[in-house]
This record gives sequence, C-alpha cells and structure tokens, in this order.
Amino acid sequence: MNYLGIDVGGTSIKAAVVDSEMNILSRARVKTRTGVSGEEFCADVALAAQNAVNELGISVSDCEYCGVGCPGVVNPKTGVLEYSNNLGQFNVPLKSMLNQMLGIDVYTENDANCAALGEVAAGAAKGAESALMVTLGTGLGGGIIIDGKIYPGINGVAGEIGHMVICPGGEECTCGRRGCWEAYSSATALKRQTREAMMASPDSLMWKLAPTLDKVRGKTAFEAMRMGDAAATLVVESYIYYLGEGLTNCINILQPEVVCLGGGVCGEGDNILIPLREHVEKYRFGRGNIRQPKIVCAILQNDAGVIGAARLGY
Amino acid sequence: MNYLGIDVGGTSIKAAVVDSEMNILSRARVKTRTGVSGEEFCADVALAAQNAVNELGISVSDCEYCGVGCPGVVNPKTGVLEYSNNLGQFNVPLKSMLNQMLGIDVYTENDANCAALGEVAAGAAKGAESALMVTLGTGLGGGIIIDGKIYPGINGVAGEIGHMVICPGGEECTCGRRGCWEAYSSATALKRQTREAMMASPDSLMWKLAPTLDKVRGKTAFEAMRMGDAAATLVVESYIYYLGEGLTNCINILQPEVVCLGGGVCGEGDNILIPLREHVEKYRFGRGNIRQPKIVCAILQNDAGVIGAARLGY
Repeated sequence: MNYLGIDVGGTSIKAAVVDSEMNILSRARVKTRTGVSGEEFCADVALAAQNAVNELGISVSDCEYCGVGCPGVVNPKTGVLEYSNNLGQFNVPLKSMLNQMLGIDVYTENDANCAALGEVAAGAAKGAESALMVTLGTGLGGGIIIDGKIYPGINGVAGEIGHMVICPGGEECTCGRRGCWEAYSSATALKRQTREAMMASPDSLMWKLAPTLDKVRGKTAFEAMRMGDAAATLVVESYIYYLGEGLTNCINILQPEVVCLGGGVCGEGDNILIPLREHVEKYRFGRGNIRQPKIVCAILQNDAGVIGAARLGY
Repeated sequence: MNYLGIDVGGTSIKAAVVDSEMNILSRARVKTRTGVSGEEFCADVALAAQNAVNELGISVSDCEYCGVGCPGVVNPKTGVLEYSNNLGQFNVPLKSMLNQMLGIDVYTENDANCAALGEVAAGAAKGAESALMVTLGTGLGGGIIIDGKIYPGINGVAGEIGHMVICPGGEECTCGRRGCWEAYSSATALKRQTREAMMASPDSLMWKLAPTLDKVRGKTAFEAMRMGDAAATLVVESYIYYLGEGLTNCINILQPEVVCLGGGVCGEGDNILIPLREHVEKYRFGRGNIRQPKIVCAILQNDAGVIGAARLGY
C-alpha cells in the first residue's frame, strides 16, 4: 500500500509517495506562495500531491491516505490549521478542503511533530516507544512521541521545548519571553554567539573562515576550534553547555527512550554528541542508577517531514 | 469491587481500601522503619494492607489488587523498587514479594505519580485525559498523566520537573545541579527566601509572625504581605515569578489539559492561582491563539497517594 506525505515549508511544499516500509517512491515540489487565500493554499498542497503521484504513474486514489505537516498550530483532531505566521494562514480547514480536492482521507499535524514521527518510523529512533526530537535550526523545535504516536497535548502544540526559559531575564526570544532555550541553542543563536566572540577577538581564526560577520555559519566556531582557536573553543563549549542544560531538563521531564537531534549543527556528529552525552550523564536526575535515554543524531534529514506525514494515519 | 491502595512515606505507610468510585472505605497506618531489610520493609507494607482490610471486616482476597506508591525509583514494569534514598531501600522486588505475602495482584509506582493519578481519578483533575501534577513541598515533585495513565518514561522516573534548571549556575539543588526549579519554587525554597529577606529587613513584619528564623513557615511571607509588609511582598512576587516561569516551561512542553498544584503552599488558593494564571497567560507559547491548560489546586490532600495507588491496575 502507498501513502502520500506532504511537508509544507516556508519556501516549498514537498510531497512524496511512500510505501509501507517507508521508502520514498516519488517526489514533487511546489513553491509556497504567501498572501494567498486558504483555498489557494490548499490547492497548492493538492497540486504537490498530484504531481508526486503523476511522477510515479499512479493516481491519488491508489494511496491509502494523505498526511500533511504544516508549520504553526495545527489541530490534529479538527484538521484545522489554526494559525501559521510563517505561511500567513489562519483558520484554514485543511483536512476537509484537501479531502474534497483529493478524494482520500487526510491527516494533519505540525511539521516538527511529523519530523519526529518520521525518525521513529524509519530513522534514527526507529521502533522507539517514546522519543523526543530536538531540531536545532532557525529556531529550536521539538516533537514528542509517546507509545509510537505524536503527543499533541490539549491544543496540538505540545513539545515547544525551545520556549523553555533557562535564563530568566536573559536573551530576547521571538516568542516574547526572555531567556528561552531557543535563544541559546538554536543555529541562529550559535551564529549570534560566534559573531559576538569575533567582535571581541579581532585576532581570532574565525575571521579567516568568515571574513565578514554576514559570512558566519553554524560551523564557523567548530571549524576554528579544530584549528586551535581559543575564542572559538569558548564559543563551542558555551554552546554545548546550554544545549546540555536544556537537554538534561527535557530528559528529566520526559525520560524518552531516544533523544534525536536534528538540524544543520548535527553535521558535527560526534563533536557535538560526545560532550553532550557527557553533560547529560553528569547532571541528569538519578544518574548511573537509572537507564539513560539514547542520544543520537537524526538521519532522515529533509525527508523526515514527508515520511512522518505519510505515517500519520498508520 | 474493592481495591487496596498504599502510600509509603518517610514517616508512615498509609493503606486504604477504596471502592470503584474511589471512596475510601477504611484506613490503616504503620510506622516506616529505616535500616530494615527489603523483606522486612515489604512485611510492613503487607501489615498496613492487612490492617486496612481488617478495619473493614473483609479479607485481602476481597480486593481486586493492591497498588503501592513509593518514593524513589520504582520500575512499574518489573515491580522492583530500584532505589529510594528516603527509605534506604535498594533493588527490592516489591511486586513479587508483596504478591506472595498478600496473594493478590500487586502494582507498583513512584509516589508522586500515584498522587497525580489520584487527582485525575477522583480529585481536581477528575476525568482529564492529560494532566501535570506539581507538588510544592520539601522538594518540587511532578507526575505526568497521558491518556488517563501515568507516563513513566523509559525508566520510571519521568516527570522530574523540579530538576529542570531555570537558572544555570544558580542556587544549589539536592540533585547535584545548580539552578533547578526546585531550588526556587519548593516550599523549602520559599522558606529560605523568606529568611533571607528577614535578615536583610530587620523591621519587616515577618519578624512578628516568626520571631526567630526557625519559626519561618511557607505562609509567613504571604501573611506579612497581607499586613502590608513591603519586604514580604517582594518575597511573594519573586516566588510567584519563578513558579510562573517554571510552570510556563512545563506547559509549553506538555500542554496538558489540567495542571494541578499540590502541597502546603496551595493553601493560599487564589492568592497564588490568580497571579500564576496571569503569568502563564502572558508568557505561554501561542498565548490567546490556543487553548490554555486549566491551572487548579489539588483537592485530595494526603489521600491522593492512596487513591492513585488504588487506581494503578484499573
């Protein structure tokens, strides 16, 4: 049996046809338009789905259902996209509109939750009963899996771990609070910390890697650290410290079987995993006396969203 | 049908026979002994159970099962009390020993989890699908209910919300970390904050209520605030600020249907609930756009533990 999975992003709507082993059989991509009506938005999503099945030479009705992941607040029970600042869409009855357009069952979810489900279905947390996905990107997103299913909370927005304040009155966060974990441990935060360290250290090797501040990337400090740069080493150590503090908090609360890290920063692999596991083992509640959740890096990259979406009705 | 519920505490083992509407039909209490073997400990638990059924004039076999809540790390799957510093017990096969002693099915859990289940079964969170119990006592304990059941995590210790660091490098915590929420928002922390404010304010009315520092109670600052004392008002405001920050974090992560506050501090009722709800509404993720978890005070007091334990096999 085949399944349609759709991952709506800020720049493109990605669709895939996936089989029951979660292999991707075909893909399609449609540009995300802003400033369009809810109906036009749904039509774009339906077009991406149609293109993906066309690519495979089947029709939509050959798929068991279509799962859709969207940024923002998606109510999985009603199927309404309640609001998404990124997409500029509010109160769109996604499930019912798409059901009419496609003629098959439709399931809807938040995109970060879909990515978490994808990693549990076919990725680094495959087969885990419980898992926490931590995505280090522009923001710091989370998705909670319990009993193999997305845990949505009462309103569909559970898992906003990035908006856990770890420094009251600290760095400003886009959510309106101060001191959120996201403001210390997202890729955006790492770049800000790198730029701050460069401005304070005119001799740092980081300036060789990023001759101007707008050239700073998530890996700039990591690379300069490997070249022996002291200022860069401090940036990385501090970044991992805050990442470890927030992760230990999440583990103390959720104790999931697997913690799965995603986002570009995870390209550092063991450079980030090893010190992070040490931090968690040193500070987690109960320490050596209780089983530790496994901490791994995500492996599905950009496919986690479509695979998770294709798993929504499973 | 009747059920046995047992709540093991640091000073006494409380047992109750409970009916299917979660009414307590009889009670018994046995002193908690320290420095005894695991078998002697279990025998004390069995004695409490026996006394509770004797009190009602029935026998243990008239009860469907016996649920036991213990402080420390209890593995609900294996039924082993893995370790409890409070009780001085390690690796006690609670479930199998008690099953032999009582001759009925035995279920085991952490005591804070039992209290959470009790409030969902028959208390302030009755009927909630998901709930978070936050107990403000000597420590700051938590219990997570999902789909009406205790969420234990991979190792039985999920819900250690008190050991979420909210101020890295801040106040020392008993768990070995610094800056844990427990070190700011437990009843113990409130008393410490009250004493610190008194030492800095020799004219404070708090000295009228607690003539010596060892007389300070959780309600000292609240009472002095109502008498118009400025230093006490600052203590309460700061206490509620940190309580609100931690609670907002938990809500952003879990979005439970009900948040249930327990512990002596909750005797303040609306004095604590109203500013806390305001704080959460101001800072929670999504704010007015999404449904807010209900924040209430626990109502079962000391009975939550035995009622929750009696619900374990339900």
